[in-house]
Amino acid sequence: MTYLRNCWYVACMADELSDGPLARTILDEKLVMFRGEDGTAGVLADMCPHRFVRLSGGKVVGNAIECPYHGLRFDGSGTCVYQPFESGEPAPHNRARSWPVVERGGYVWIWAGDAELADPDLIPSSLDVLDDPEQKTVYGYLRVEGNYQLVTDNLLDLSHVDFLHPDARLPEGYASYENKVEQKGNRVFNWLWKPNSTPNYIQAALRDSTEEKADVFSHMEWNAPALMMLRTGLQDVGEPEGSDLNLPSAHLMTPETETSTHYFWTVSRDRKKDDTALDDLYQTALTHIFSTQDGPMIEQAQQAMGDETDLFAMHPVILSTDSAAIRARRILQKLIRDEARGSAPASPAIAAA
Amino acid sequence: MTYLRNCWYVACMADELSDGPLARTILDEKLVMFRGEDGTAGVLADMCPHRFVRLSGGKVVGNAIECPYHGLRFDGSGTCVYQPFESGEPAPHNRARSWPVVERGGYVWIWAGDAELADPDLIPSSLDVLDDPEQKTVYGYLRVEGNYQLVTDNLLDLSHVDFLHPDARLPEGYASYENKVEQKGNRVFNWLWKPNSTPNYIQAALRDSTEEKADVFSHMEWNAPALMMLRTGLQDVGEPEGSDLNLPSAHLMTPETETSTHYFWTVSRDRKKDDTALDDLYQTALTHIFSTQDGPMIEQAQQAMGDETDLFAMHPVILSTDSAAIRARRILQKLIRDEARGSAPASPAIAAA
Amino acid sequence: MTYLRNCWYVACMADELSDGPLARTILDEKLVMFRGEDGTAGVLADMCPHRFVRLSGGKVVGNAIECPYHGLRFDGSGTCVYQPFESGEPAPHNRARSWPVVERGGYVWIWAGDAELADPDLIPSSLDVLDDPEQKTVYGYLRVEGNYQLVTDNLLDLSHVDFLHPDARLPEGYASYENKVEQKGNRVFNWLWKPNSTPNYIQAALRDSTEEKADVFSHMEWNAPALMMLRTGLQDVGEPEGSDLNLPSAHLMTPETETSTHYFWTVSRDRKKDDTALDDLYQTALTHIFSTQDGPMIEQAQQAMGDETDLFAMHPVILSTDSAAIRARRILQKLIRDEARGSAPASPAIAAA
Repeated sequence: MTYLRNCWYVACMADELSDGPLARTILDEKLVMFRGEDGTAGVLADMCPHRFVRLSGGKVVGNAIECPYHGLRFDGSGTCVYQPFESGEPAPHNRARSWPVVERGGYVWIWAGDAELADPDLIPSSLDVLDDPEQKTVYGYLRVEGNYQLVTDNLLDLSHVDFLHPDARLPEGYASYENKVEQKGNRVFNWLWKPNSTPNYIQAALRDSTEEKADVFSHMEWNAPALMMLRTGLQDVGEPEGSDLNLPSAHLMTPETETSTHYFWTVSRDRKKDDTALDDLYQTALTHIFSTQDGPMIEQAQQAMGDETDLFAMHPVILSTDSAAIRARRILQKLIRDEARGSAPASPAIAAA
Repeated sequence: MTYLRNCWYVACMADELSDGPLARTILDEKLVMFRGEDGTAGVLADMCPHRFVRLSGGKVVGNAIECPYHGLRFDGSGTCVYQPFESGEPAPHNRARSWPVVERGGYVWIWAGDAELADPDLIPSSLDVLDDPEQKTVYGYLRVEGNYQLVTDNLLDLSHVDFLHPDARLPEGYASYENKVEQKGNRVFNWLWKPNSTPNYIQAALRDSTEEKADVFSHMEWNAPALMMLRTGLQDVGEPEGSDLNLPSAHLMTPETETSTHYFWTVSRDRKKDDTALDDLYQTALTHIFSTQDGPMIEQAQQAMGDETDLFAMHPVILSTDSAAIRARRILQKLIRDEARGSAPASPAIAAA
Repeated sequence: MTYLRNCWYVACMADELSDGPLARTILDEKLVMFRGEDGTAGVLADMCPHRFVRLSGGKVVGNAIECPYHGLRFDGSGTCVYQPFESGEPAPHNRARSWPVVERGGYVWIWAGDAELADPDLIPSSLDVLDDPEQKTVYGYLRVEGNYQLVTDNLLDLSHVDFLHPDARLPEGYASYENKVEQKGNRVFNWLWKPNSTPNYIQAALRDSTEEKADVFSHMEWNAPALMMLRTGLQDVGEPEGSDLNLPSAHLMTPETETSTHYFWTVSRDRKKDDTALDDLYQTALTHIFSTQDGPMIEQAQQAMGDETDLFAMHPVILSTDSAAIRARRILQKLIRDEARGSAPASPAIAAA
């Protein structure tokens, strides 16, 4: 398995850079992320080219990061801008590898492939909601010891909720929901909805209506390589979908290594935006559920697979509920193959047109 | 080194299954053991065939074990008996690998080879004493990071007791004992005895006689692959062996991996059966001695051998006290070779006839 | 990368053997060091030839070490001198491999190559000061997870002090010092000095003179494979070098493995020899600085290099301050190559003649 390279990956949440440099491994590469005094984020290989120590152990000086061992400084383009003890220009190879960076939706994104192709518009437009000032967004981060596609599998098959999340369980389990899987271009949608159902306690607290029953829905959109947007909500029975409550929730996976994943999530809302207790509830509940319930399942699956990252090589039993996840895996497989043959980056929107 | 397959291995103590499923690796395979509502023990590969998570993290439902991720259920034969969300029959490969099981002597045993050859009578008859209602038996379990044959070596050469177990040392060390090593069929016996000796404090407390001196003995029987029965005891000087005290003690090794071992032990007695302080003494003393004295020696030997499991490949110095252990290793080597050539399982009793 | 074999390596500080046997890995080999009742140090492979357990877990009996498992005893030459339970002579291979040993300068040294070539005079004469009764010497030991040549690099390029050691920083940084690198035979010298400078607080406290200014110096001598002697000191402005304060400080590296190092250091002084608070200050400060500042840099460099031990294979940026370290690496490379071709051990003194 190789990675899709010509695409954007979330490197960090924007505010992770406020307290100095951040070290993080992405796509098997050790990176340092930092924000210069001018506010611009830079992402470099986390290794000084002189004695190979981690730049992330140093400090930001101006718009550069200073190596903690002998004081060399590198700016966001990777150029050595200061060599103490030395006269003359830095050698041409006295530079740290740099990555194209863009900030959007509260995240610092890096482009993992050909820098000339790095187009910010290739970030899926369904994530624009994260920059919408009408929304209040809670951000979370978790790390999981499993291939990122196992996290995709988990999110595209919510049938596990009925078994794995007894405390988050819907009043009426997903087993009773209507379901439709749809592919549009290179995007996959997994639609789940239940007319005339009982909202869960958060939905009940947030909805405008005072009715007891509602038509509820839970729709997942997947974009390659692993950028997902879930919309959950409800409306009074028979009303247009989302006409009352419509909560966008991003689930953005960045491979750390072949067998571990950075999982960035958000939950947004357009109401009760000053309710910090609700912020805390989302933060605590989602962290608890993922880290103690989904995370261990994904990690066990990876352990059973060992170094294998291709699920199909393991000859799994396929259930009807795997349908969306399998489409997503097939699309990603094809995009990686196409990229190896020289195809241009695939925009989900263009592909869908 | 490969394992002897057509034989019974202890998987667990019977009462280890009373609180739900048990995960244990045996012969390099991750297994789940559970007892259904009907009381029958089942042993399966500890991996759901759908997404490969550990079944041992699930719960027993009826006579099946339910996967914690998506709720599939498998009975003791490995058959998927329930698929939520699905209609129709489970796919033929929707099953978990199962192992033949028998319960005897307070243990759940599994057969590691051809299921058609699984004959409970191949469990050595010297272990029948564990089912004898006249005996009170204390059960213990330890895990050691060394090949199971290194544990066999330890138990078949008790000369180490004089050096390694200062607190368990006999009043008169094994160096002063008579010794005879004997092979009968595929069994090896290591006889140790000393006429007119001084019993140790447990023997003195348990014997019927009030004499000070006694003829004492300590006889070990080995059966392939690593099922051993020690009988220690004494009688008044000149009386028939075991006519006063005769304590059976099983030492049953199951390979976890090539370089780690499950060590199940028992001590039985036909007197002071209600003396729970004596139960505790056996449990505490044997656990302490093995885990802090024998265990570290075996682990160091394995560490020095690295991944090697054939002692002879290391060209060890051979001492006269290694005689029984070397016979056992030679017999096991031959049985494994014979099995690879298609020989039927070897009963120690038949082989001895 | 292979090791230079025909040379002396520090195995331990002499007083590390006062409390029984010591286990330590040197040049990838597990060794046991012990002092017999006659006061002679012995160094053997830390593995009993009978069942391979660690002799270092046993105890010294007379001038031999007794195996903790079955009681075999081996003297400093590796000969088995006692076999309990056995009659007759030990088998010829019943011996533990032994290493030539010499004690000098408060250290036990072992010879890693051809025993016939083991000549104590090959220990660099600059270390004789450690046996000088006019000097009071503080000894320290640290272990670092990096190749020993990375520690050499660190010590031969003190430009890092200005960045890495803010609390040990000289009143006027090394950036302002005069510097000269010199090679004499197989030795490398890195001279650093600054006329009319401000002494640091320890120098100020130890000097005889009451002047405020001084000419200060900091000279490092390197001998293959990694035996270094630093002399720091000062004199009144314009006086002969070292005419006031001259503090010898040894830095002696022994490879544990290709990627880890035993680092033995000393600081000697010829004044305030009864000042135990000063002993403690040296011990505490040097341990703190190395273990929290230099050590982590060296370890990060090794982590970045992975299993690689040849710095040049990593194509590092070379700075002018690397000059002494690079000369030392080139000399060592040549000595190892020469040794592989059969050359005799190289004395730094002879080579310099």
